[in-house]
Amino acid sequence: MDTKPITTRKIIKINKSKVNQVSDFLAIEDPLEISISIPSALPAILNKNISITMRTPNNDANLAIGFLFTEGIISTATAVEKIKQSENKITIFLENDNNIDLSTLDRNFYTSSSCGVCGKASIDSIKTVCKIDAKKVEFKIDSSLIKGLPDKLRKEQEVFESTGGLHAAALFSLEGSLLILKEDVGRHNALDKLIGHSLMQNAMPLSNHLLLLSGRASFELIQKAAMAGIQFIMAVGAPSSLAVELAVEFDITLIGFLTKDKFNIYCGEKRIENLNFE
Amino acid sequence: MDTKPITTRKIIKINKSKVNQVSDFLAIEDPLEISISIPSALPAILNKNISITMRTPNNDANLAIGFLFTEGIISTATAVEKIKQSENKITIFLENDNNIDLSTLDRNFYTSSSCGVCGKASIDSIKTVCKIDAKKVEFKIDSSLIKGLPDKLRKEQEVFESTGGLHAAALFSLEGSLLILKEDVGRHNALDKLIGHSLMQNAMPLSNHLLLLSGRASFELIQKAAMAGIQFIMAVGAPSSLAVELAVEFDITLIGFLTKDKFNIYCGEKRIENLNFE
Repeated sequence: MDTKPITTRKIIKINKSKVNQVSDFLAIEDPLEISISIPSALPAILNKNISITMRTPNNDANLAIGFLFTEGIISTATAVEKIKQSENKITIFLENDNNIDLSTLDRNFYTSSSCGVCGKASIDSIKTVCKIDAKKVEFKIDSSLIKGLPDKLRKEQEVFESTGGLHAAALFSLEGSLLILKEDVGRHNALDKLIGHSLMQNAMPLSNHLLLLSGRASFELIQKAAMAGIQFIMAVGAPSSLAVELAVEFDITLIGFLTKDKFNIYCGEKRIENLNFE
Repeated sequence: MDTKPITTRKIIKINKSKVNQVSDFLAIEDPLEISISIPSALPAILNKNISITMRTPNNDANLAIGFLFTEGIISTATAVEKIKQSENKITIFLENDNNIDLSTLDRNFYTSSSCGVCGKASIDSIKTVCKIDAKKVEFKIDSSLIKGLPDKLRKEQEVFESTGGLHAAALFSLEGSLLILKEDVGRHNALDKLIGHSLMQNAMPLSNHLLLLSGRASFELIQKAAMAGIQFIMAVGAPSSLAVELAVEFDITLIGFLTKDKFNIYCGEKRIENLNFE
């Protein structure tokens, strides 16, 4: 069962002084739970959960089989007897032969992050976990200030830019001063470093700050920012569908594709000043 | 204990017709094992492993604390009593108070991938798991053919490019024909889709193929490619330190920052033809 990898959404596009509402495309990000069943094993292995991954839905069977292969669980195509999928759960039925290495099943997978639950359920679970009472601060940011932030980030990133391989998460004041900059090969780690630093400085919640991400905005990054009470998130890259959904749910302003000339507003435009539609 | 986020390495830089050996910077990627201890809990919680993440070493304490916070385990700085770190293991000692939510500890984290072991140990473990006997194929690729591949990838990506939010993994023949292209919001998923597809087509191992990755090359991607027997990997972005280490270990050719004019060779230059050093 393959579904579409792309969805559309009405967004606000700012290009120099032009402001337009347009329909734009978003890459879908959605969890897939991968399980295996080996009915002929003694004892039978039924629906053993192997992984939950945030993926773009299409080619789910290839994704699951590729994952089993690269994890060393199967080594040949003949090990696969059948595949069953319903929505975001896929089960690969395996033969009980010598080509299956069950010893790897109980190995610890390393985690990229956060909640191991699915889609809407996951968003609800985050709400519960999110203990910081929003303490909403009302503010409005001028769109010219927003366009200036990537340059400020880049100047500070100079040393690390040498590798071209680091993601950055930067915290700005509402006046556009760079307060904290953290970097890492993993986007989620850069943000965790920023949030950990802020927590130890007793600066929580970060409701009256602006967050700038050097790459794309995934579900996971929005979730972490929401935990820290952040209401204003800008990304230099694209947001995923689930990132936008979560931002809407938490009443967070989400900006993507930010450059010194242009940006897209995916939600929360009420916090941006001087939006003069054409 | 904070270590350096950057390392240097001798690489070969190709810029148009110029070929030079230079020293370049790499972002360090290395595993960090995050544990918590709550000695005053009844029963005491000692060194409970919470996560292993592939990170750039520096700000490790902030990273670990930020992770505990964004996972909902702690909500205030006062919950942290002390921090102990030795190399790639960090333990956060917590007070046993009401601000700690132990119920979240046994939640399943979702996995981004692969082996849950560390650094060198991990590389050894991959070697064991990697059951495909290399079946090494000897070949040489002309550097002009390499420079043409990103354009071929981009042409085929047209539809998905609309979102700007998808990573691609593409398999080429030794003659430079695009054979398989898979896309996903997650880089590791795009590669698993490609490998799963190849496995189901009985095309394993992929030792006489070229792999092109649209983004950066992390440890995890090299590990997956190695499992599939791939000997030639090109990335449009930067490789991490651990990605290069693993490629060297497996005798894989690794190219980064590939454009139509330039690329860097990190290892395995024996498979590239017409490298005329200045």
